[in-house]
Amino acid sequence: MWESLGLDLEAHDQLLQVIPPAFGEVYMQQKNRPAEMEYFDFVISEIHGLRIQELQEHKARGGKVVGAFCIFVPEEIVRAAGGICVGLCSGAEIGTAQAEKVLPRNICPLIKSFMGFKLGHVCPYFESCDMVVGETTCDGKKKAFEILNDYMPVHMMETPQMKREKDKALWRSEVRDFVTEMEQFTGNNVTYGSLKRAIQDVNGKRKVLARLAELRKNIPAPISGKDSLLIEQIAMYDDVDRFTGQTAKLCDELEERVRTGAGVHEPGALRIIVSGTPMAVPNWKVPHIIESSGAVVVAEELCTGLRYFENTVAEDGHDLEQQVDALAKRYLDIDCACFTPNAKRTDKLVQLAEEYKADGIIHCSLAFCDPYLVEANRVEKVLKEHNIPLLRIETDYGQEDSGQLKTRIEAFFEMLAAKKA
Amino acid sequence: MWESLGLDLEAHDQLLQVIPPAFGEVYMQQKNRPAEMEYFDFVISEIHGLRIQELQEHKARGGKVVGAFCIFVPEEIVRAAGGICVGLCSGAEIGTAQAEKVLPRNICPLIKSFMGFKLGHVCPYFESCDMVVGETTCDGKKKAFEILNDYMPVHMMETPQMKREKDKALWRSEVRDFVTEMEQFTGNNVTYGSLKRAIQDVNGKRKVLARLAELRKNIPAPISGKDSLLIEQIAMYDDVDRFTGQTAKLCDELEERVRTGAGVHEPGALRIIVSGTPMAVPNWKVPHIIESSGAVVVAEELCTGLRYFENTVAEDGHDLEQQVDALAKRYLDIDCACFTPNAKRTDKLVQLAEEYKADGIIHCSLAFCDPYLVEANRVEKVLKEHNIPLLRIETDYGQEDSGQLKTRIEAFFEMLAAKKA
Repeated sequence: MWESLGLDLEAHDQLLQVIPPAFGEVYMQQKNRPAEMEYFDFVISEIHGLRIQELQEHKARGGKVVGAFCIFVPEEIVRAAGGICVGLCSGAEIGTAQAEKVLPRNICPLIKSFMGFKLGHVCPYFESCDMVVGETTCDGKKKAFEILNDYMPVHMMETPQMKREKDKALWRSEVRDFVTEMEQFTGNNVTYGSLKRAIQDVNGKRKVLARLAELRKNIPAPISGKDSLLIEQIAMYDDVDRFTGQTAKLCDELEERVRTGAGVHEPGALRIIVSGTPMAVPNWKVPHIIESSGAVVVAEELCTGLRYFENTVAEDGHDLEQQVDALAKRYLDIDCACFTPNAKRTDKLVQLAEEYKADGIIHCSLAFCDPYLVEANRVEKVLKEHNIPLLRIETDYGQEDSGQLKTRIEAFFEMLAAKKA
Repeated sequence: MWESLGLDLEAHDQLLQVIPPAFGEVYMQQKNRPAEMEYFDFVISEIHGLRIQELQEHKARGGKVVGAFCIFVPEEIVRAAGGICVGLCSGAEIGTAQAEKVLPRNICPLIKSFMGFKLGHVCPYFESCDMVVGETTCDGKKKAFEILNDYMPVHMMETPQMKREKDKALWRSEVRDFVTEMEQFTGNNVTYGSLKRAIQDVNGKRKVLARLAELRKNIPAPISGKDSLLIEQIAMYDDVDRFTGQTAKLCDELEERVRTGAGVHEPGALRIIVSGTPMAVPNWKVPHIIESSGAVVVAEELCTGLRYFENTVAEDGHDLEQQVDALAKRYLDIDCACFTPNAKRTDKLVQLAEEYKADGIIHCSLAFCDPYLVEANRVEKVLKEHNIPLLRIETDYGQEDSGQLKTRIEAFFEMLAAKKA
């Protein structure tokens, strides 16, 4: 199967040699894991197996697979046109040498990773995609998609840079155009009925993730941050209905844990919110350091986290145009640092710290990511005003800085513990 | 005067200690300089003197001074409202330590410089500004303006990311809003008459710069690239009418040179186009290396160059709304790498190489500038197709890499000379 996808089998082997050991070390040695994590562990163990098979079967039936690197791409529309939307991960340092042939060396590791994956034919998800939908959320991706378009079809959606009425109108028009694009690309009409179903399905996924998030507000937290992040990562590419059902089962188990007061960590463990740039599979570095230093991550204010599921699409649209309105509204509500100003994000962090009873926030940005790295200054300012402790981290996909990060994170925790005492 | 501006006199002294010696070394030792360069040398010798005095006198009369960091800010509108628009330079490594308190370390030197200038109270132009007009051309500036707004009023204009009809409409609306903003800020109405005059004045400046550019197409080139760049830099902040008059005088002299076949360089010198990110005063590093290696720069496909003056605003608008249409159209024609796609820029480079009889192009980008650094890949692709030699450079405001740059540039020239022979 992998060969027929045009994968570079040797490079792909290298990737598969990285993920399972990392997963074993980071995940399988956790204590008190919920039993229902078994499904998600299985998904990872089959990361380039079963799901790829499903995508191939879908393609064999004439279906299209559409890839995205950003949560602004409306999955509902792909789905309503009979396609499958997969979030491509780009969380590993593979194909760097190839990527650097076409990209500057000093660029965000996620961008370098996606170009390396593509040029190196390493990722079976990427190779399964008939099209990638790009967006203009950041300079690096915006311009890198021009290069990617040399290798495969790319449709661009223009995310605006502000959120005023005229920006909403521009974005609404982009979402509407995307409906037409998907219709043409798949050969299927997007109807009121198919879009309604797709909105409900994806809302279902978002709601179960919100339910999971809600459960994590409890003390003790019934699930680790690492496990939660894994679920949020898998949400991007798994079959929607199956994912929703499995996550609901997990939530049932966690509710039982909450009822009995069972948790995953020592009593009194520090509660941390991580905020910043997305953490794509297998980038579990910072949550792993945090949780192996005795704290628990209680929320991810990330694209692989709250930003992905905190808002749902209104389901009361009476026709396709109203559905498009609702989709445009929901997506533009995402508090990405690409917007200026983006005060709703900093305000939300204050609110999250209270709701999740967090002891501190770790702002974690990928290297060279100007939107988040510069916005960290705003985050710092607002959190200071509210007396919420903050640690700022800039990192990449390498492990070279792990020791230094651990030292800084532990020092931060000592400060938090002293404050708490 | 400087004290009343709130300048940090010690830091300002440091800046003034850098510019004149650099200018003496880079500029005053050139051979065969046109006599009419005397005016521009005088402007530089008085860089923080006479012009600042003029701005202060304007302010004393109740006038406003508006700063900009980007050629997308429509100077005509500021002028029509009775204000003075100054392009702020940010071409020197000063205030870095202060800038790094609020910005990431790995960010474009121009952004770090403008923040350092402001936080350090170093630049009398900046300190003379009543407002800065920001734009969303790149992530770094877009987000840094949020921080700058803590220290002074900032009005943001949203430059779109594409150039389709809907983008034109958005940008047209931004230009229209800027008229209202300037009216409110200055207390003066922008009238058809005042805007017509402002458009004519600024067009006059652009036309004389285009005349200068046209003269540089001759072999031998009648003026050095360094002198031309200096003029293009001074265009950003000098009095418009005086600048236009003086540049016209210089062009008269250059026309005479062309008639007599006089040039600034040895016969057969290599002709180079520089392309990329803006070169702000006193960033003359790369042109200086090029021209002290025996070649001559014949055009700057830069914001401090052709992008600034190659298009004029249509003067046939019958009312204010038509004038706004014309302004919006002219500004959105700028081929900035912030747009996706931006094929007009690469096509233009091919055309420029032919028109200016260039032997090669040096693509010069500031470090960490994703739009230009990534687009360099497109430039490379298109120039290769047309067999136009290209050298790609990434640099900053430091002098540490001068030796290495000189070695690379000389090697490039050897290759060009061998090709020519």
